Order: sequence, then structure tokens, then C-alpha cells
Amino acid sequence: MRATLMYGAGDVRVENVPDSVIKYPTDALVRVTSSCICGSDLWPYASMSPDEGPAHMGHEFIGIVEDTGSQVATVRKGDLVVAPFAISDGTCEYCREGLQTSCVHGTFWDTEPLEGGQAEAVRVPYADGTLVTLPVAADSALIPSLLTLSDVLGTGYHAAVRGGVNARTSVTVIGDGAVGLLGVLSAKRLGAEQIILMGRHKARTDLGREFGATDIVGERGDEGIAKVRDLTGGQGTHVVLEAVGHKSAYEQAYGVVRAGGTISRVGVPQYEQAPIGFSSLFGGNITLNGGPAPTRAYIAELMPDILDGSIEPGKVFDSTIDLDGVPGGYQTMADRTALKVLVTP
Amino acid sequence: MRATLMYGAGDVRVENVPDSVIKYPTDALVRVTSSCICGSDLWPYASMSPDEGPAHMGHEFIGIVEDTGSQVATVRKGDLVVAPFAISDGTCEYCREGLQTSCVHGTFWDTEPLEGGQAEAVRVPYADGTLVTLPVAADSALIPSLLTLSDVLGTGYHAAVRGGVNARTSVTVIGDGAVGLLGVLSAKRLGAEQIILMGRHKARTDLGREFGATDIVGERGDEGIAKVRDLTGGQGTHVVLEAVGHKSAYEQAYGVVRAGGTISRVGVPQYEQAPIGFSSLFGGNITLNGGPAPTRAYIAELMPDILDGSIEPGKVFDSTIDLDGVPGGYQTMADRTALKVLVTP
Repeated sequence: MRATLMYGAGDVRVENVPDSVIKYPTDALVRVTSSCICGSDLWPYASMSPDEGPAHMGHEFIGIVEDTGSQVATVRKGDLVVAPFAISDGTCEYCREGLQTSCVHGTFWDTEPLEGGQAEAVRVPYADGTLVTLPVAADSALIPSLLTLSDVLGTGYHAAVRGGVNARTSVTVIGDGAVGLLGVLSAKRLGAEQIILMGRHKARTDLGREFGATDIVGERGDEGIAKVRDLTGGQGTHVVLEAVGHKSAYEQAYGVVRAGGTISRVGVPQYEQAPIGFSSLFGGNITLNGGPAPTRAYIAELMPDILDGSIEPGKVFDSTIDLDGVPGGYQTMADRTALKVLVTP
Repeated sequence: MRATLMYGAGDVRVENVPDSVIKYPTDALVRVTSSCICGSDLWPYASMSPDEGPAHMGHEFIGIVEDTGSQVATVRKGDLVVAPFAISDGTCEYCREGLQTSCVHGTFWDTEPLEGGQAEAVRVPYADGTLVTLPVAADSALIPSLLTLSDVLGTGYHAAVRGGVNARTSVTVIGDGAVGLLGVLSAKRLGAEQIILMGRHKARTDLGREFGATDIVGERGDEGIAKVRDLTGGQGTHVVLEAVGHKSAYEQAYGVVRAGGTISRVGVPQYEQAPIGFSSLFGGNITLNGGPAPTRAYIAELMPDILDGSIEPGKVFDSTIDLDGVPGGYQTMADRTALKVLVTP
């Protein structure tokens, strides 16, 4: 079968690899019908060392179940399914709590050595815990939106949920990538009335407005902080959703958060050390939370809104390619000429 | 009047200073009947540079109102009152939310240049917002416990409240100082069934057991982390109360917190940069919160438990001195021969 391999920074190839097959009784084999490239795929695309590769790429996909192991009970051959970016057994204490990203048997597609969603097929471990069936056909017009349940919608929603967004909270969203924009959509869905989007790419911030942003701040650094404070009576917002992962975005976050407020991070931190002392977090009783989103936990809640058309998160896809186009797709996202690329193998 | 001044590290003196007097119509003048030395006073006692001094010391006190400004409505001459370690106007949006430490007109006694609780008298700004009257006499046996409402009880309680402690959460408390021990008491009051106290001073950990600790871990570093994990099926505890302020205590905290859990800091951080990336906080969806405790917010809730004897936080005082004894009191706390020193001017 054909699959996407990353050999190092800037070096993505689509190659023939051994066919994925069922290995364990809890596995399912899924023929991919739609997948995509993630903003987080751009981190290794920018920095991966050749001796770490080649890595199988892709952690967001929809596909048709082709085969199942003997213990799989909830999905069967022919089902259309969506896979979250984290594999989870569905039965451990963390899964039962809705924190599938900490599943005791779980892992991430990104650390599963031989499988990935940017391919023709995928062996899915713990199929019962991981996969969710979709009540539409593989060519439904809703597929792009349903595909965002894998990662970017669930991740934006996780940011908003962990941030405690509700009708009484003002929100700043840092980052106008797909996750940031769906953080806006999520904050709106949870009732926030003031949603300030920090971003500077007009096509993206326009989509942000469509998703519910009330204010756009293009400035960064101290200027950006001053602008958000101007918009909030000098106080900052109750919640800040940090959807970038750079340290500068985190510094922006504690610059615009209101005393007693929350910074919810879902951009994968590209740093380890950062300020958390009296003048950044402690003095103002700021809460810092977030992490890898257990998107599996949110699918049941969010899917109905997609099916009835009340949200259209699939609007973040502005480019569609086939598997051969994947290397070029990485480059367009890295160049920021594409917001998010849909792949139809 | 006589007051405690710190001239630099290790240099505390009791001296004659100009009498405190009413300056603004919202002030009260309070004759101090009980005050104390705080663990946080030991930070400048260890490191203060002489050119920062002299500083008026003391931010926890009970006293009798001697005079009030023309706009003061809720306390009057002769009332026995307790003062939190933060001054607050009681009317701004933060005060109304219960975050008096972020009051727009507020400050801390430690940054109020000419006043302090380790003295014969104090001018109290925003008396209506700051002070709370006590329904006992100045020589009541309950005074030591009521004095902890100023800071250490409210601070331990803040840690537990912000940490989300309840009957379903296991808790680790880092630090066997007065705040850590009252963190234990607070966790117990909020229903926690497993409370692991990390500390190594037997007299203190014995009091911790009396306050509700179920396990004592004397080890530190990796050994201490392993011990807590042993006690929690390998998972760590849902909540960690960090009541020290050293970076090593924070590192201990993320070592023992369970995935999805919360680190609640109330020890004033003696560091600014610390790890918050994937391997410390982000990967496990750990929440970091806490800050200076708005103890004013908790007085109404906690005082009845003291008055009816159901909690006895005053047990943290193991030494009583007069104003002349204050310099020696600092040294006994720095030497850890005293846990917490009560001062009766």
C-alpha cells in the first residue's frame, strides 16, 4: 500500500510500504477515505533530524472498516469511522474519566511506528476504544467537518472547555491556524460574548469572524497585549486559548489574561522552561492548563451539531489533494498559503 | 510607638517609630493585641539587601479598633478585628468575585511602606473592605486559631479550594510548615480521604496526622516521588498542594501529580522560570494554579468552624513571645526550632 513517510525536515515522500494488517484481536483495519495534514505535522517538517526517520505520518482520518480482530465489538466491516489522534483502550480509568490521551494502553499515531493516517490503510489498535462510527456515507458533504472531530475541532473545544469558557467569560484566542479558529467556534458554542482573535492573516481572521470572533488583533508582543487590554477595560480576558505552541505565544497569553483567569494551552509547547513566578502567573492567581486533547471524549457531544449543520468546522479546509499531493501539501501549509489540507487517497 | 523593622537579611530590630494615625476617611487605627511571624517573612530574612530597608514587618494581626475615619461603616471603636495579609477595598469587581488579592485599590502589608502587624498599632486602609470583626474577647482561648484567618489557614484553604479538593480526590501536600499543615486540615475539611504529607520534621508531621494526613513521606526528590507513586497505585494524586515556594518543591509537585490533576501553589515562588512543557505539565493535561490567597474571602466560611471548635488551626503556634522577642522569634523560625511564633505586643 502507499503511505506518507517523513525522512527529515522538508523531506516528505509517498512510498510503497508493506500492507497494514490485523495483528491483535482488538485491532481494526481501516481503508482511509479522507485524511489531512495537521499544523503539528509542521513541527517535524521544520526540524526533524534524518536519523529520527522515516516516520509514518498522519493522525487524523476517516475510513471504511475492512476487517476486525476477533475481540472487536463496536465497529464492523463496512462501517465508516473516524479516528482521534490518540489511540485509547476505552476501558481504563483515564478513558472512563474522558482523558483518553492518558490511557494506560494508549499512544499517539505520531508515536505508533508503522501506521499513519496519510496512507491508503491503517491498522487501528483498540478499535473499540479508539474509533467512532459515522452515520453518513464516505462521500457525504459533511465529511470535511466530521474529519475535524479527529483533532482540530476537538482540540479547539478542549481548549475552551478546560479554560472554563461560558456566557460570563471573555476570551482571547492566540493563533489563527485551524485549532485557533475552531477555538473561536468552540468559545462561541459555549456562550462567550467577547471573543478576541489574535492573528494577522486576513483570510483566516475573516473565517474567525464567521466562527464568532468579535474583535481581531493583528499586533503581537507588547503592542498586542496593549490592544487586548484596551478592548477589555484594561483587565484582559477571563480566558486565553493558546493555540500556537511557541514560547512567545505563551508570553502573549499571560500578558492578556485577567487576574483570576485561565490560560488554556493546546498548541504543543516547543519549549520546556517558561515564566510561572509571581509576575507572570502566581501574583494574579492565574490558572494554566490544557494539554493534548482527548478528542475521543468530545465526539459524541460535537457530532450532532455537525450533522444538523449548526456548526461547520470543515470550513478550515481550503485545499484538497490526493495522496501524491501530500508532499506539496506540507509545503503549502508551511508557506501558510494553505490553512489546512484535506487528503483524499 | 514600637514596631518591627527589618534592615536586611538577619537584621530585625524593634524600634520606636512615629505613631500610626488615621490619614484617610476609609482608614481605621487598630491597637494590635496578637500578631505573628510568617514563613514568608523568612524569605527577606534570608536574602534582603540593606538598601531595600528598613521595612515594617508583619502582615497577620488581631487588634482593637481605636479610631476610624469618617467613611468607615462596618467596624467601630472597641471592636476586636482580624486583618488579612492583603488590603482590599471590598467594592471593586475583584473583591466582589472573592479575589481580594487583586483588588484595584489593594496592596499587601508587605508593600505598605510604613505599617506592619508586628507593632503596637497599625493604620488599616480600606477598613470596611479589609477588616472583619471577631465575636470574642481579645484574651479568648480561640485567639491563636482566629489569628490564622489572617493568612496561614486561609492560604492552606485557598490551596485546597483552587486545587479542587473533594471527597473523590487524593491529595499530596508538599511542605510541613504552617501553611502545609493547614493545607492538610483544609483538604480534610473538604472531604479528601487520602492526604499524603511530604515533610521530615516529626513534631510537624505528627501535627499533620492530627490534622488529617493519612500518610507521611519524608523522602524528597526522585525517592519522594517514587514513594508517593507507591502509595497511589503508581498514578500520583489528583491534587498537589505546594506550600513551600522553592523550585525543587514545584518539581516535586509535577512528579507526584496524577494525569489530569492539579498543582495548586501557595508557597510564594522563589523562581520565575520553571518547566511547563510536554514532559512536565502539558502531556498529562496537568493544571497549575494558586497564588496569593484572598484570605478575606474565606473568613466568613471558616470562622464558624473555629468558634464551634470543630477545627483548631491555632495548634500551629508552638511559641509565644512579646514584641521585644520578635528578633529572636525570626531566628527560631529560620532555625526551624519554632513552627510558628505568636506575638503579643
